[in-house]
Amino acid sequence: METCPLAVIGILHTARVDVEATPVQAGLNRDEHGVVEIGEEYVEGLSGLADFDYVWLLTWLGNSAAADEISPSLTQVPFLLRSSGREMGVFATRGPRRINPIGLSLVRLVELDGRMLRFAGVDMIDATPVIDVKPYVAAFDRPPGDARSGWFDSVDLSAPVTPADLA
Amino acid sequence: METCPLAVIGILHTARVDVEATPVQAGLNRDEHGVVEIGEEYVEGLSGLADFDYVWLLTWLGNSAAADEISPSLTQVPFLLRSSGREMGVFATRGPRRINPIGLSLVRLVELDGRMLRFAGVDMIDATPVIDVKPYVAAFDRPPGDARSGWFDSVDLSAPVTPADLA
Repeated sequence: METCPLAVIGILHTARVDVEATPVQAGLNRDEHGVVEIGEEYVEGLSGLADFDYVWLLTWLGNSAAADEISPSLTQVPFLLRSSGREMGVFATRGPRRINPIGLSLVRLVELDGRMLRFAGVDMIDATPVIDVKPYVAAFDRPPGDARSGWFDSVDLSAPVTPADLA
Repeated sequence: METCPLAVIGILHTARVDVEATPVQAGLNRDEHGVVEIGEEYVEGLSGLADFDYVWLLTWLGNSAAADEISPSLTQVPFLLRSSGREMGVFATRGPRRINPIGLSLVRLVELDGRMLRFAGVDMIDATPVIDVKPYVAAFDRPPGDARSGWFDSVDLSAPVTPADLA
């Protein structure tokens, strides 16, 4: 367990409590809803956000069960490659056991209700700290053409998947 | 000036030294090249990354001139709205003066040469610390359809722009 060394601007509320039973990416679980409860002192920072369809949530994953290892390995078997056992460098994965355990999740903004940011797309367990919210801007965040996605291109991403599904 | 409270996994080398003369987003300056020099102790973590066309660079912007303010305002005039003077909540901007000054840049991976990650798409000044590298995965990072991008949709993003251009 590692305390978040950054300011916590909000806390996630989701129906997921166990990493092993939580979808590995928001983009693979786009229909499930969650809420970010933004800290009262930061609510003013949400001004203008309601006009965006998608937002990035940057989360601190250092408190999760996945962070039990003190020093994460530089090569790991990603959840999505569990069946083959293939290892990848941590910077070629999106897994939570990172040098700096920061999660990056693209979620659909459903409603901004005071300090409650309701979204669709859940890959985080309940009570995960949120360290930043950024708007999704197509001009910045969408590469031109079809980008190759390395080893992910050989994985079936057609259904919501949890680590337990992939064991 | 604020010391990075996270592990620095690499350092950026770019031709930009002044925030005011640096394009505000990598996606608006896709042709300029830069290099991330990954720390020797982390090189193994790059295994498998060469098969991706695009990567996310998470950077620590707390050392830049933009971080002179001790506590950034929750509402700010984004660089891209300087001409109108309109304020936005910080979480509706991509600017560097954030509660946690973490930058998120989508760059094209040009070549992985030992611990040198050569990329195209520069919006960072030289010597910026890199705190994470993640692969761009279309299935996770590209929303379906055309996502509304709030106030950015009313801004001309057709040319490389620096804060100084927008003054």
